[in-house]
Order: sequence, then C-alpha cells, then structure tokens
Amino acid sequence: MPVESIRWDEDHATILDQTRLPHEERYLEIASPEAMFEAIQRLRVRGAPAIGVAAAFGLYLGVRDHRGTMEDLLRQVDEVAGMLARSRPTAVNLFWALDRMKGRARELAAADPAEPVQVREGLLEEALRMLEEDREVCQRIGLHGLRLLTPGMRILTHCNTGALATVGIGTALAPVFLAHERGIAVEVYADETRPLLQGARLTAWELQRAGIPVTLLCDGAAASLMARGGVDLVLVGADRVAANGDVANKVGTSGVALAAQAYGVPFYVASPLSTIDLGLATGQEIPIEERDGREVTEVGGVRIAPEGVRVHNPAFDVTPHRFITGIITERGIVHPPFEAALRELVR
Amino acid sequence: MPVESIRWDEDHATILDQTRLPHEERYLEIASPEAMFEAIQRLRVRGAPAIGVAAAFGLYLGVRDHRGTMEDLLRQVDEVAGMLARSRPTAVNLFWALDRMKGRARELAAADPAEPVQVREGLLEEALRMLEEDREVCQRIGLHGLRLLTPGMRILTHCNTGALATVGIGTALAPVFLAHERGIAVEVYADETRPLLQGARLTAWELQRAGIPVTLLCDGAAASLMARGGVDLVLVGADRVAANGDVANKVGTSGVALAAQAYGVPFYVASPLSTIDLGLATGQEIPIEERDGREVTEVGGVRIAPEGVRVHNPAFDVTPHRFITGIITERGIVHPPFEAALRELVR
Repeated sequence: MPVESIRWDEDHATILDQTRLPHEERYLEIASPEAMFEAIQRLRVRGAPAIGVAAAFGLYLGVRDHRGTMEDLLRQVDEVAGMLARSRPTAVNLFWALDRMKGRARELAAADPAEPVQVREGLLEEALRMLEEDREVCQRIGLHGLRLLTPGMRILTHCNTGALATVGIGTALAPVFLAHERGIAVEVYADETRPLLQGARLTAWELQRAGIPVTLLCDGAAASLMARGGVDLVLVGADRVAANGDVANKVGTSGVALAAQAYGVPFYVASPLSTIDLGLATGQEIPIEERDGREVTEVGGVRIAPEGVRVHNPAFDVTPHRFITGIITERGIVHPPFEAALRELVR
Repeated sequence: MPVESIRWDEDHATILDQTRLPHEERYLEIASPEAMFEAIQRLRVRGAPAIGVAAAFGLYLGVRDHRGTMEDLLRQVDEVAGMLARSRPTAVNLFWALDRMKGRARELAAADPAEPVQVREGLLEEALRMLEEDREVCQRIGLHGLRLLTPGMRILTHCNTGALATVGIGTALAPVFLAHERGIAVEVYADETRPLLQGARLTAWELQRAGIPVTLLCDGAAASLMARGGVDLVLVGADRVAANGDVANKVGTSGVALAAQAYGVPFYVASPLSTIDLGLATGQEIPIEERDGREVTEVGGVRIAPEGVRVHNPAFDVTPHRFITGIITERGIVHPPFEAALRELVR
C-alpha cells in the first residue's frame, strides 16, 4: 500500500490530514460524526471513494453510544446520515455509502427487532466491509487499467486519484501503481490542480514516495504538452458519472479532455461502479459545488488577488461523454456508446 | 489612462514594479541597462509591448554616458542590445525594439558621422517615439476591437493584456477600457493564469481600479464556464504571431482556445503588428521559454509541492491558427485564412 488515507482503530477512525500535505504527514483520530463531517467538508479526507468510507464510519460513530429503542436508533441513523450528507454535495459515493448504511440498519432491525446492539455492531461491520470492498475495487480497476499501459508511457493525470483518494491503491492511479510494482516503467505528468493543488500537494507527493517518476505542471500547460506529443495517455478519476457517460470530476478535467481529443491522446476515466449514477440522464443534472472564493484568492495563507474581487470557484466540471475514450471500472473497461454499456455493467 | 506601467522621467525610466501587485503600488527608478535587464527578466515590467519600450530605454541608458568615437559608440549599442536581448527569449517585440534602436543609431551615424552626441540623443527620441506609438497602437486596437463588443457581454481573458502590459490602454483589454469609457457595460472573467498569476494579481487589480466588473477564476474553470454558456467572447493577447496565424501567448491560452471552439465562443487575439513575425512560417518555430520550476512549486514564498519534484514550466504555448476566430491589430481585424491577410496587413 502506498499510503493509508483512512483506517479503523478499535474505537475510532484514523485519517491522514491531507490539508497538511506535502509538508507534514499528520494523522487525526476521528471519534464523532461531527469531527468526521468537519474532516470531509474541510477536505482533510477527500476523493469520492474515501469519503464514502469516511461517511460510513462517521455514521457508526454517531450511533455507537445509542442506548434507546430500536425505533429511536433508526431515527438517529437517519439524522446522522442526513447531517453527514450535507458535508459535500457532488460526490455520489457519499450518498451511496450513507444509503447503504441506512439500508443495512433497517435490514438488521427487521431481522431482530429486539436487539439494537446488533444494528450498532452491524453498522461497524458494514463500514469495515465497505473499506475492504474499496480496496478490492481499486485493485480490480488497477488490473483492468493495466492493459492500457506499455513500458515508457507518459501518463497525464489531473487532481488526485491515488491511495489518498481511496482506501486502496487509488482509481486512476491504480494502474500506475500496479505497473510500477511489476517493473513496467511509466512516468506521470501531474496537473497541479488549482485551486486546492491536489496534484502538487498529493499526487506528486504520493508518486514520489512510491518511487514513480513524476513531473508537476500547471493546469494550463497540459494542452501544449499534449500538442507537442508529450503525453501518451490521460487517466483521471470521477466524482459522479451520469447514465450517458458524462463525467463530473475536479474542475479542469473537461479542459484536459478537450485537449486530449484535439491532439489525439486517449482519455480514460477510472470510476468505481459506486460512482456511476444511472439516476441522472446526463451530466447537466449533476449538482456542482461552488466553494469559497478564498480558495482562489489565497494560497497557503498568502493573498494573491486584490481585496474584494469577485470569484467563480466551482469545485467540479462535467466532461461531455463524447470526449471520453473509455471508462475503467472494477468490472472492466467500457467504450462508447456508454449508455447501454454502463447499464449492462451496473446490472 | 488606467495605470502607467513605464514612463520616462528626465534622466531615468520609472516602472511600476508588477511583482509587488496587487499588494503594493511601488515604482522603481531604472537608470542603467543592467537594472532594466533585471526588471525585464524578473517580470517587474512585462507584457510584449511594454518590454519593447523598456528595452529601448534600457539601450539608451547603456550609451548615454558614452564619450568615445562613433565606431566605439555603435559597438556599444550592439553590445548593450545583445545583453538586453537575453532577458527574455519569446516576445518578439523585445528584438523588434532593439533592432529598431540599432537601425536608428546607424542611420544617425551615417547622417552625421562626426557627432556621436546626435546618436545618443536620437536614441532617447526614438525610445520616446516608440512609447508614443505604442499608446497610439493600443488606442487603435481598442477602437477596432470595440466593434466586437455589445452591452452586457461577458468577456473571458487570460493573463494580463491591459495598461500594465503596454504603455497605453492595453491590447486585448483595450476594447474593454474603451467600452467602459463610453458607457457600454461589459464584464470580464479573468483567468488567474498560473504560474505567475498575472490574471489574479494584475488583470483583476487594474480592472477593479478602473471600475469594470471583474470575476476571477482558476484557469481550469474556464472550459466549464464556456460549456454553460457563461462567456460571450474570448479576448487574449499575443507574445508572437507566426505568418500562418499561430499565436504564442501565455501558457494556458491554447486550452482556452480549444474550449472556445468546442463550445462556440468567438476567440480573438489582440496583437500589435510589431508582434507579428512573418519570418516564422508556423508557431512550431517559436522558441518557448522554460522558466524556473520554483514558479510552480512556490506561491508567494509558500511551498506547495514536495521537495525535489520535477517541474515542467513553459511560459508560453502556441494556439494553432485553426482555433482563432480573428486577430485584432492596429490596422483592423483579420480573419482566416490568416497567411495572406497578415502579409497584406504588414505590407
């Protein structure tokens, strides 16, 4: 494992505080749902798969000390889940994980209505199962994606989709980690990914730590690098995939996709099935989180823009499916037309 | 005038130190060619038109105290010009301005071979003439570009092409300043323009100062803003235009052009004729300055990437002419096919 973003330690979750990277590798003990809410909202733990697992642990933390009736416990499950669901609006894994936890609580309650303790313990087991499943999903995405990689390949990525974004070896970076493990020499170009610099702070850090050659570049430099033939493959992650294959991912992804198409570079999205939302027909229906303008006007506490300037700061963008070569999931790689292929895969 | 980037004060040039913006409006007295070299290289004065004028003043400063023979003076002109030409490699205006100064020196020397003082004084006059001409060029670009603007228009720009980049009202921002002056309400989206943040530090500052509505966004957010129909027109500047219409400009410009084309937004480049280099057949021949990686790994002295990471930091990129709607010059707007139109214009 390159690095562990989140784990369970007996009676609390431990997360690596990603806001401190790359300067400090600091771990936080999270023992309440409020602390987990704060950690998700402030991006201490981030990446669609990782925040799904984080939310599941958060939900368990919110009910483990409950000692009332079953009816009251289920009400509390819903309340805590509702609170955690408000931490971030775009990543579907968050809602998916919370819904799964709520469903499991009801299932256990129905099986043994007199034993709330079974529900509480069952929720911890469910969260741990999700953690294990995510590890497995990353591994499988890595294996499918590995087929796209050949020795010497130069891979461009945007944002962070490695171990830090998941509880396993990552999504879009999973094939890269597996290639490295097998002695297939590849190198990575990491877009710095403004405003929060996940590429500079996280991707560069974890690839460097794993001994994989990585070159950092500003987001605006990716198009010309592709124009000059400097990139063989683009691999990015996803925060939500619509039924037609439109992909919401970190802001700037769609620009990378346009450049990849213009200059003939294959553009692949790595996405666990839990990130695919067949309930949304197209990407236009995906809500896009607008974040605090200070993320743009301040970098590391240093102000870089005049006081009072207006800011447009969407956290994500939608890459239209027509710019996507393929979507790598744990059940294989799908190609256009995505609509039918995704439905088949999810079923 | 929105703000003065460079002026001549009796015996020295005064420049606004743009590396201090937006925090401090600090002016520097430049009284030697070495100081001017440093100011150009460190981007204290920047923008293709402004550095042409700056280099011309720098050349004069390098010979004004010369008291030797004419032959020796002309040798010194060449030496100082050669030194200044090494300050930045991409902007053609720099070479254009220095060549013009050298040509003027030879012209004056031929006219009156016994009077080196005439050459020295003539070089100051020539530099002052270039300053006046640049003001005029900006005004004319503004007037031609103004025809593209209608009330309520949302204009996206990249980097800084305003008064700070020229000695007049700017190039790509000139139409915006003129529109504002005439009561035509337009608003500007300013890409922050990593790595040196000219959009955040300079464009946002000077538009705000002029009372023109401006919204700052990360470079990666421009594509999705266009996808959502949030931009009516893109206006950018140029550091060098090749004979076929390919445009070298601040890194990130070509990505903006790709998005503009994908989403049907007109993409115009404002360029003085002095920036058009018919000696280069295509943009592939334009040398691209690769700058210090610390511009990417540090922001305002704060480190944002792990130590030792490799960096790809090209200062410019080339926008292929097929993505350009039109080029606005002081002699009018040209449209594709650019090759013949540009030749006609320059002649």
